[in-house]
Amino acid sequence: MSNNLINPNPLSGFQDLLPSEALKLETIKNNVSIVFNKYGYKPIDTPCIYRYETLFGSKAEVDKQIFDWSKSGGDHVGLRFDLTVPFARYIAANYSKLTFPFKRYEIGKVWRGENPQKGRYREFYQCDYDIVGTNSSAADLEILLTTYDSLVAIKQCNFTIYINMRSLLDSLLNEFGLGSYASVVLRAIDKFGKISEEKLLEDLIWKGIPKAEAQEIIDFILISKEGDNKDILYKLRQKFPGHEGIGRLEYLIENFSKLRDLSRIRIDLSIARGLNYYTGMVFETFLNDDSNIGSIASGGRYDNLTSVYMKDKLSGVGGSIGLSRLMSIVPLNNIDKSNMILVVTEPSVYFGESLVIANRLRENIANVELYFQDEKSSIKLAKQLKYADQNNFMYVVIVAPDELYNSKVVVKTMSTGVQEEVNIYELNKYFDRLLN
Amino acid sequence: MSNNLINPNPLSGFQDLLPSEALKLETIKNNVSIVFNKYGYKPIDTPCIYRYETLFGSKAEVDKQIFDWSKSGGDHVGLRFDLTVPFARYIAANYSKLTFPFKRYEIGKVWRGENPQKGRYREFYQCDYDIVGTNSSAADLEILLTTYDSLVAIKQCNFTIYINMRSLLDSLLNEFGLGSYASVVLRAIDKFGKISEEKLLEDLIWKGIPKAEAQEIIDFILISKEGDNKDILYKLRQKFPGHEGIGRLEYLIENFSKLRDLSRIRIDLSIARGLNYYTGMVFETFLNDDSNIGSIASGGRYDNLTSVYMKDKLSGVGGSIGLSRLMSIVPLNNIDKSNMILVVTEPSVYFGESLVIANRLRENIANVELYFQDEKSSIKLAKQLKYADQNNFMYVVIVAPDELYNSKVVVKTMSTGVQEEVNIYELNKYFDRLLN
Repeated sequence: MSNNLINPNPLSGFQDLLPSEALKLETIKNNVSIVFNKYGYKPIDTPCIYRYETLFGSKAEVDKQIFDWSKSGGDHVGLRFDLTVPFARYIAANYSKLTFPFKRYEIGKVWRGENPQKGRYREFYQCDYDIVGTNSSAADLEILLTTYDSLVAIKQCNFTIYINMRSLLDSLLNEFGLGSYASVVLRAIDKFGKISEEKLLEDLIWKGIPKAEAQEIIDFILISKEGDNKDILYKLRQKFPGHEGIGRLEYLIENFSKLRDLSRIRIDLSIARGLNYYTGMVFETFLNDDSNIGSIASGGRYDNLTSVYMKDKLSGVGGSIGLSRLMSIVPLNNIDKSNMILVVTEPSVYFGESLVIANRLRENIANVELYFQDEKSSIKLAKQLKYADQNNFMYVVIVAPDELYNSKVVVKTMSTGVQEEVNIYELNKYFDRLLN
Repeated sequence: MSNNLINPNPLSGFQDLLPSEALKLETIKNNVSIVFNKYGYKPIDTPCIYRYETLFGSKAEVDKQIFDWSKSGGDHVGLRFDLTVPFARYIAANYSKLTFPFKRYEIGKVWRGENPQKGRYREFYQCDYDIVGTNSSAADLEILLTTYDSLVAIKQCNFTIYINMRSLLDSLLNEFGLGSYASVVLRAIDKFGKISEEKLLEDLIWKGIPKAEAQEIIDFILISKEGDNKDILYKLRQKFPGHEGIGRLEYLIENFSKLRDLSRIRIDLSIARGLNYYTGMVFETFLNDDSNIGSIASGGRYDNLTSVYMKDKLSGVGGSIGLSRLMSIVPLNNIDKSNMILVVTEPSVYFGESLVIANRLRENIANVELYFQDEKSSIKLAKQLKYADQNNFMYVVIVAPDELYNSKVVVKTMSTGVQEEVNIYELNKYFDRLLN
């Protein structure tokens, strides 16, 4: 590269999406948005840049990862690192203009100032959906249904949603007089599955939990490793009779099973979710045959989302779908139906004919590209067909002089190579049949 | 506000979009994307943050407006101020992976470090579409058709696209031996319409154009102030016989008139577009009854988009739709059909029935919100109906004990207040008829 030229590559940790990847992202975004709208969630749009204190105010663990800078002579500002903090302050800033319960979704870019690694970017998309201003279990249920329907909408069929109640572990720790250890224990438990029972025991003891209680915590978690949801609920009720959290868990399992697929939801007492602000239901979603990819959707119930911005308490429940992770597993060929028809023109044909044909096809049929004939040098048919091949077009409409003389064009099906003459006045009907 | 609380408001020049506004934006984005896809443009997605030199390299006039900062110990970086510079470097960075002609669109946020004013934001959306790697007039035409169809798709019907050819003014100036004054003259002409003929003459003379030539430039521009496109083309051909630019202009007018509405396009020799890099067709689009709002879509042909990033020359043509401006004129009620059905429940009814009803409605019918009944305190019907009213729902499905006993619900049409009993097994069919 010459010294005069400027390096066009993205910064480390940032990425260009090629058309096929961007199309996949668009399709995923559209499909999940349809689900969100169906449930009555409303889109919102929040700024990407904030005063540093607005971002820092959340006291989230990601503080050191904020992409911050001081604009010369200006405020100390930073880029949003998630969509939860912007949402919390959005509610506080627009409180009088919103009606509650308020259901929102937002899909947007977030930034992290951390060191980029393989599969970990400094700029990526998040997709959040929340129901704020109600403590109802029906809202918890709807977040689970939304998660389920969204994943189905993007062609994921083989996943399990693992749910838990924060209050169960709290009750256990309070029983031991170890209530203040809640967040320490939560973080340790979160690793269960990745680490062995022995390692977890060691870790809990190292963190200050007496050995007997540490073993009881593990025994408690193990309740959910055997049997079905009914068995687990039965054991939990024996352990904590009349516990409100168990009632809510039962409600979720029962109604989810009635409205969707029973086998897709499972109580898992080791689901902890790292973040402190969850207070009720928490959930994570894993692919059944590829758990290495990590959680593809997660969330939970929180008691006081807006505490740093306003005095009114607002509880809510929300979920987040891992668009970046899903991008890597949703197959391209499930998505990319966009290259439907290419109209090509033999050099000797008056190009205006092709303009009209492409224009008419676009009236009814989706996605028609016209290969442009240059004014000065006409482009050979072979080059145009090569372009069709390189770009995976499904059909090519060939406008050639002999056929056109009889008001016909040639339609070539690219997958088979079969060519067929079609009357130009029948062309829209022909493709209507073929594509629908 | 207590001292302990953090100010939740956006920074000056940044904005929250309330649900109704965000919904409008979503709808506009979706509708124009459908048009872009129909023409075979592919979405791309580019990073928002770049090395400062990558942004500065374009030598665009907005340099001083770049939102820049130096991350502690890191690169001098900045936020993209448009979608053209990221596109130019995208092509250079991914040259071997793309096929040409390459058609892309991108809708995304851009940032300006300038002082915010009313209607001028530091963060806003842009929407660009380009066809790169062909010099064909058919590509110019398709950019105009795309612009037309996009505006129609977002319910704009009363606009005119004004087009011009850069090369015409160049020819005139070269005739006078004033070729080097091209960009100075362009900037002056750009204001014609806002300023009078006398003011423009004064301005041109002040900028160094001799009086006689300045008057000839104005007389030339005035050609397009009278008569129809045919008259203007006739006069232009008399002035510059055999001029390539006139041939291209004629091609655009003729074919656009054939494929769309003749009255929507007009040659205007005062259309200059401030930016230096345009070399061929340029266009601006104004509303016929509200020109004060400024251009709502504009663009043109450029010869060498990627010159600062790579040696290969790439010409192309592109357009940009002013989403922010359109946001202010697209009426809300044309867009917001999202609040279709609210399902409400009388406190004495088992809420599981409403869950099932809402779930079944969502299978076929768009956008069904379920008003959650709280576990502990049941919410009165009046409060739920008030929520329906505040949020402009079209229909409310009331689940009440007496009707439910006979497998019925009450459907209330909010606009008329009319209530009707409907069998729950007929409910989907009932709304199918009503909504389609």
